[in-house]
Amino acid sequence: MTIFAKILAGEIPCHRVYEDEHVLAFLDVAPLSRGHVLVIPKVPVATMDQLPDEAAAALGRVLPRLCRAVMEATECSAYNLLQNNGAAAHQAVMHLHVHIIPKHADGSGLGLHWNAGTCDDPAALAIAIAEAID
Amino acid sequence: MTIFAKILAGEIPCHRVYEDEHVLAFLDVAPLSRGHVLVIPKVPVATMDQLPDEAAAALGRVLPRLCRAVMEATECSAYNLLQNNGAAAHQAVMHLHVHIIPKHADGSGLGLHWNAGTCDDPAALAIAIAEAID
Repeated sequence: MTIFAKILAGEIPCHRVYEDEHVLAFLDVAPLSRGHVLVIPKVPVATMDQLPDEAAAALGRVLPRLCRAVMEATECSAYNLLQNNGAAAHQAVMHLHVHIIPKHADGSGLGLHWNAGTCDDPAALAIAIAEAID
Repeated sequence: MTIFAKILAGEIPCHRVYEDEHVLAFLDVAPLSRGHVLVIPKVPVATMDQLPDEAAAALGRVLPRLCRAVMEATECSAYNLLQNNGAAAHQAVMHLHVHIIPKHADGSGLGLHWNAGTCDDPAALAIAIAEAID
């Protein structure tokens, strides 16, 4: 049982900011910046590829509202949404979670390394991905 | 008019992987890793806080399916979803876009700086955010 499942079960407290039938949102205990919020589905899946469509729609639906609230409460105008899947991609808790991370004027927030490259065979790759859609 | 609006209008080509009534997904022209895909809503808003609820639900709904297809086509098991809001948060094109970025065994993908801190007043902050939800 992950720590987020325990939070959902009420076994561990959290600083809750939002809850509905499908979703819980609460403050990250180790924030990258003031107002760093986690949004989790109630269905206990580890990664986005495992999330049922309806739960994914419910999660998506609340994001604009939560972003507006974080912006208003923390007076930030820029922010990142991040969702890590797999330990190699920096996922620490194996219950799907979306980070809302304000980028404040003091520079606090998410730091990114952006090493862009190129793709040699974009037409073939796009077809391969399109054909893999279930 | 952003470059993504021009892609939606068919004025600029893209390597499309998915399209429905609400959403278009295509290869990033400057990928961080093989299979780096962008998912955009058809409604022309810049940031997540501006996205109507129904469009946000439609965007969320397709993410698991697209993640599975990217995983299958690129044989990756880890990946990041990233959505940047505002130039200070590394947003370059002012039409909302979600990055699906495979993290491959060669290390290619999204690089993150994770400088976690603490919050002095989490109870008060959580209440402030909760009360700001519209």
